[in-house]
Amino acid sequence: MSRAIYLYNTASRLKELFKPIHEGHVGIYVCGPTVYGDAHLGHARPGITYDVLVRLMRSLGYKVRFVRNITDVGHLENDADEGEDKIAKKARLEQLEPMEVVQYYTIRYEEAMKKLGVNPPSIEPRASGHIIEQIALVKKILENGYAYESNGSVYFDVAKYNKDYKYGVLSGRDLEEMISNTRELDGQSDKHSPYDFALWKKAAPEHIMHWPSPWSEGFPGWHLECSAMSAKYLGEEFDIHGGGMDLLFPHHECELAQNTAARGKGGVHYWIHNNMITIDGKKMGKSYGNFITLDELFNGTHPLLQKAYSPMTIRFFILQAHYRSTLDFSNEALQAAEKGLKKLFQAVRDVNGIQAVSGAPDAGEAKLYEDIYDALCDDLNTPVALSHIFEAVNIVNRVKDKAIQVSPAGLVILKKIFKDVLTDILGLQDEQSVGVGAETINGLMEIILAERQKARAAKDWATCDALRDKLGELGIRIKDTKEGSEWSLE
Amino acid sequence: MSRAIYLYNTASRLKELFKPIHEGHVGIYVCGPTVYGDAHLGHARPGITYDVLVRLMRSLGYKVRFVRNITDVGHLENDADEGEDKIAKKARLEQLEPMEVVQYYTIRYEEAMKKLGVNPPSIEPRASGHIIEQIALVKKILENGYAYESNGSVYFDVAKYNKDYKYGVLSGRDLEEMISNTRELDGQSDKHSPYDFALWKKAAPEHIMHWPSPWSEGFPGWHLECSAMSAKYLGEEFDIHGGGMDLLFPHHECELAQNTAARGKGGVHYWIHNNMITIDGKKMGKSYGNFITLDELFNGTHPLLQKAYSPMTIRFFILQAHYRSTLDFSNEALQAAEKGLKKLFQAVRDVNGIQAVSGAPDAGEAKLYEDIYDALCDDLNTPVALSHIFEAVNIVNRVKDKAIQVSPAGLVILKKIFKDVLTDILGLQDEQSVGVGAETINGLMEIILAERQKARAAKDWATCDALRDKLGELGIRIKDTKEGSEWSLE
Repeated sequence: MSRAIYLYNTASRLKELFKPIHEGHVGIYVCGPTVYGDAHLGHARPGITYDVLVRLMRSLGYKVRFVRNITDVGHLENDADEGEDKIAKKARLEQLEPMEVVQYYTIRYEEAMKKLGVNPPSIEPRASGHIIEQIALVKKILENGYAYESNGSVYFDVAKYNKDYKYGVLSGRDLEEMISNTRELDGQSDKHSPYDFALWKKAAPEHIMHWPSPWSEGFPGWHLECSAMSAKYLGEEFDIHGGGMDLLFPHHECELAQNTAARGKGGVHYWIHNNMITIDGKKMGKSYGNFITLDELFNGTHPLLQKAYSPMTIRFFILQAHYRSTLDFSNEALQAAEKGLKKLFQAVRDVNGIQAVSGAPDAGEAKLYEDIYDALCDDLNTPVALSHIFEAVNIVNRVKDKAIQVSPAGLVILKKIFKDVLTDILGLQDEQSVGVGAETINGLMEIILAERQKARAAKDWATCDALRDKLGELGIRIKDTKEGSEWSLE
Repeated sequence: MSRAIYLYNTASRLKELFKPIHEGHVGIYVCGPTVYGDAHLGHARPGITYDVLVRLMRSLGYKVRFVRNITDVGHLENDADEGEDKIAKKARLEQLEPMEVVQYYTIRYEEAMKKLGVNPPSIEPRASGHIIEQIALVKKILENGYAYESNGSVYFDVAKYNKDYKYGVLSGRDLEEMISNTRELDGQSDKHSPYDFALWKKAAPEHIMHWPSPWSEGFPGWHLECSAMSAKYLGEEFDIHGGGMDLLFPHHECELAQNTAARGKGGVHYWIHNNMITIDGKKMGKSYGNFITLDELFNGTHPLLQKAYSPMTIRFFILQAHYRSTLDFSNEALQAAEKGLKKLFQAVRDVNGIQAVSGAPDAGEAKLYEDIYDALCDDLNTPVALSHIFEAVNIVNRVKDKAIQVSPAGLVILKKIFKDVLTDILGLQDEQSVGVGAETINGLMEIILAERQKARAAKDWATCDALRDKLGELGIRIKDTKEGSEWSLE
């Protein structure tokens, strides 16, 4: 590939040179949403972070297979091993079949991601569609002695695993310490220890979603799906596993333990975690009840919002922070992002009107271009990349103000920065004219036709014809009638 | 419900009064696409037909659960029991994982349907996600004696089934006749008879998609998924099963036989089939190589097309024919549809400018409204409904020409026809201003700002201010600078 990428690997706590398993190919798995409610700002961050990572790798020439799952079964309340399935509960409350809930929120999730400029993954497997693969994995772990059956459920034996491998290495936990810091549970559980986690759960009679298995009619544990589906679509050893920091423990720790217990190896070469979006310093999450949905942000319909924020404002806001830093929500920060974005795209529009001057001195364009890629390849440092892009904006503005001149080669590079990096890798788009509805266009046409009508009344035929021609260039045809003018798109 | 609906039931060959199994609820299953290529005009017809049926039923007050599947495994070439899986073949040719092919074409299918105004189904199950349910169904059919295992595959025993039930009732075929008209096959098959069909196929070594089963590592037969998934999401007995006429035999016939062999009953109350789109009198289909994709139609990029046709033109073209008639593709017919649609939406726009006159005589508006619903409830007679809608258009045009007057009550009904029927049930939208890109809007703004600049230069402050105010009403803010004016959306 044309450039080296360094990524911070949670497993080693080091920034490491990325080396793919298969030259030129990257396999990446990212934990997707549990589809039982609208996506909120907290979902936008992994969506955008891994989208930019994939876009960057593709721009460097890698062929990327990007798998992001849909959790449609097995995710119980409070991320625990007891309680109701999140989707089944929503279905019960709304008197729907669970898969109606899944369909509804999956479509809404994907629409929100599309608005944010997040490209769809290469494969989007669903937990409920991979029960066979999950059962096979449970069998393997049982065979290898790292799980036990208890009343029709199967649990992962963390103590046994800890002896042979070491549980907690990914998240930096120590099992003995964890145990000494924990009060004993009530002892009503089927588990041998509170740290054991479910691989398969026997379904209670009222549980709607269940499948046959060697142990019971039941459903898979939440952590299991990712171990099963990542291996199915990327192989038992693959390059990158991403997800939010909140998934590091227990979800990813359990995934790693499952992989190792079944296959003798963790399988993931680079574990990448994006940090959280906070609100008043607390993680934003559905479970915390402090979330603002993406639709609320786009429409400005949440009491905490001073106004609506466009999808690209959200994207820019998120990219202004490094993905491993926390990012605190505030109206001030979003409004600053909005302002920055506006300035940025004013320059993107202006650059097309700029005339290059042969022999103009180097304004540092080529170095900027390199600096931007260096920042992106340095563990996806988007804030530094953006600050360099703003240096390009400053060059454009100074040329526009006639303070400096730009050479033909420099102008090409400025345009490349906006196209290759801003648009293609960072995925930012000019929203000025996007999302304008039919009413606005009808309104603009009314204004223009009224002006033309005035010109007609004044027998100013030159203006009449000029307006007709300009509209014609836009593919809009005018038909003059006794009552006025009608318009249509060609 | 407020009105009775009559539907032509392929099973009885009669138009029957629709009676739901559960008062106020409708369960409907429709065969969806095999996602290995772009959707073509032939896919638009079932998409739009069942969309209108569901919209109609919802408008009458039914709570509808609409299930449309995605076939992502098991559909072999030529719809036969031998040959390569359609998706796996595409994956092999494009060097992709089959599920990458599935993801790519599923997204494109759904985007095309969205453009056509087809609402997504309530549940969209995938064949590969329901292997367990399909295996359970095969077991049941084996237990009941209507299938046999042969070299790791399981086949449906049509002769045995025919003795107890009668194979062919749905499509009007007679097994004995079929046999007497058939040359014997080579005898290389694992089947007892050429009419037997696969429930489970043992995977050849090179077959990419396979799952464990009691009989072999293999994959389900194509007909099986619909029997399994319809029962899972709608119950073993449900109201309506829809699909294209080309699926009647063997697909639906086999589905019915599977249902009956497993459960002793067919399970479907109303079988509905839309007829084909033809081209030069021949069915348009991917297998025939004579198809025009929806994208080609929208962009005008197929050699047979004289121009591009918009999604709503396609929708209108399809609704102008009764769903049980064949519909022949031609540029003339599409251009006529385009013209009709334009006339229609001119009236929809004009109706808002019409002034009602108290005491104006009845122009037949209320009767029209009833006639339209009567047509739709009479086996979804959309061409008749549209002809009545054009009578409403004529009323609007005559009022506009001052040939007649409309009463306040009449005007309300005219608007209701356009809103309740044209928009909500038939799903037709005014495209005049939809799909206008950023360039067009930028272009319109340039025209307006140039006019305003002229007014400024002429010190015509009234015009300047009026333009600013009109743009302000549209949410567009103007900022005057030394170089000219900038604009932004609020």
